[in-house]
Amino acid sequence: MSARLPGYERWLGRGSLFSRCLELALKEGEGSRALWEAMEYTVLSGGKRFRPYLLHASVMAYGGDIEFAAEPSVAVELIHTYSLIHDDLPSMDDDDFRRGMPSNHKVFGEAMAILAGDALQSRAFETILDEGYVKRAGAYLASRLALELAKASGASGMAGGQALDMTGGQQDEEALAAMHDLKTGALISFTLRAGALIAGSQDLAGADRIGVLVGRAFQVRDDVLDATSTKEQLGKTPGKDAEQGKFTYVTAFGLEGAKDRLRNLLEMAEEEVKVLPGDGKALLAAIGLLRA
Amino acid sequence: MSARLPGYERWLGRGSLFSRCLELALKEGEGSRALWEAMEYTVLSGGKRFRPYLLHASVMAYGGDIEFAAEPSVAVELIHTYSLIHDDLPSMDDDDFRRGMPSNHKVFGEAMAILAGDALQSRAFETILDEGYVKRAGAYLASRLALELAKASGASGMAGGQALDMTGGQQDEEALAAMHDLKTGALISFTLRAGALIAGSQDLAGADRIGVLVGRAFQVRDDVLDATSTKEQLGKTPGKDAEQGKFTYVTAFGLEGAKDRLRNLLEMAEEEVKVLPGDGKALLAAIGLLRA
Repeated sequence: MSARLPGYERWLGRGSLFSRCLELALKEGEGSRALWEAMEYTVLSGGKRFRPYLLHASVMAYGGDIEFAAEPSVAVELIHTYSLIHDDLPSMDDDDFRRGMPSNHKVFGEAMAILAGDALQSRAFETILDEGYVKRAGAYLASRLALELAKASGASGMAGGQALDMTGGQQDEEALAAMHDLKTGALISFTLRAGALIAGSQDLAGADRIGVLVGRAFQVRDDVLDATSTKEQLGKTPGKDAEQGKFTYVTAFGLEGAKDRLRNLLEMAEEEVKVLPGDGKALLAAIGLLRA
Repeated sequence: MSARLPGYERWLGRGSLFSRCLELALKEGEGSRALWEAMEYTVLSGGKRFRPYLLHASVMAYGGDIEFAAEPSVAVELIHTYSLIHDDLPSMDDDDFRRGMPSNHKVFGEAMAILAGDALQSRAFETILDEGYVKRAGAYLASRLALELAKASGASGMAGGQALDMTGGQQDEEALAAMHDLKTGALISFTLRAGALIAGSQDLAGADRIGVLVGRAFQVRDDVLDATSTKEQLGKTPGKDAEQGKFTYVTAFGLEGAKDRLRNLLEMAEEEVKVLPGDGKALLAAIGLLRA
């Protein structure tokens, strides 16, 4: 993934501020060694860092200072990872594999997996409110970013979307989109908003529109991949949607219908990016990645 | 409880800033109605609001402005509540009752209980970083309080303590205290620190000493009550410690030995409070509540 993306290595690779900041977030402190191990296990299990990349790309697209992107990027990655750990639990989606490896609870047990998710959420806010970041970015920006992240994570965001998904009943495209806008879109919209806020832009409506489009595209692509990939390609069990009789973009509109929708969403997102004041190259590249 | 505590009704009772702020935190927003219900269920199930009271009392004891106590008090109560919901889960302490009512997962199911805890944690940070609070208290204080709360909640705090408790093996008083200092003490220390920070005091070491003493006293008292109370008095299943062969202050030192320890801890805490610059009346009253 990284080779195709402008800035990826510099922003997220070895030696980057992001990678040092991520290391610091996982550095074993007081408490239970097993818990720190469980936290590290999933965070370092080879995710693509799509959200951190989006956040950096958004800072660039809004013409902001990239030096302020690392801490909020680590924070959003920790929140995303905690959600994967909790979503994989037996009482939730009951997934035994994640990123090609046994899920967190299969390795550390359910109790530790729940706690690892809980502690990763705390650690996300700790990272974004870190004294060093507050000093560099200012308390106002740091607290605003943390507020946005909290909103995007909670009942009116990601957790709310997962709850809607759990209780089910999305039987039309509108309900499906509303669920995904929270479950996946809220955190992605956060990365766009964070870029705008770091750049001092007031254009949060534009960031939200891009966030929603990219979030939906991400999910449609996920449905397409679930229907067409092997376990090796996917890193988790494929075909679960059809098996569970879930209403997805593919089961509802067929593979080609889903791909059409994906194309439309990506084109609309690209149009939005083109009018942003900064350098949209990286953001367009990230969006391009979602073509199935 | 409230009748004996100076300021309790004014700070936490109906019409108080705290109660309005708590209402706002639970006000149903976007997302899943079932999730909002699950969150509200345990938050409003009649807790004593010990931590919010401690936080208000600490602000007074440090001579700070009580007007800044509500939001961090709501936040610490939400974090505490999320920890109760997760700790009660079958894979954790497996408690069917909490505060005399069926635990969260018995009513809403495991998935929703996990999500309710997750979303309450996000909501805690949302509350403390709320735009109104940031405007009133200043971004620096708000972000510092949120940072302290994140540290107290996570792997080096409450979640770490619960992980130590889960993996077990506390077979002497030192290991037991170390576990409880994180599991219970970290959040209580947060309330003391928050009071000092709101008052602009630099005496965080004193706040930490009181926090640790009160936290330990709280836990010793919990062990004593677990050994001596009925389910009706306790609101949850008693006698579980002895039944599970757990090393507790009572199983290790006997009932009288545990009570001696409790007395010592409370006396030491009281000495610390007496040297604080503000009005320590409420804090002493809160500490006095812990006499078994």
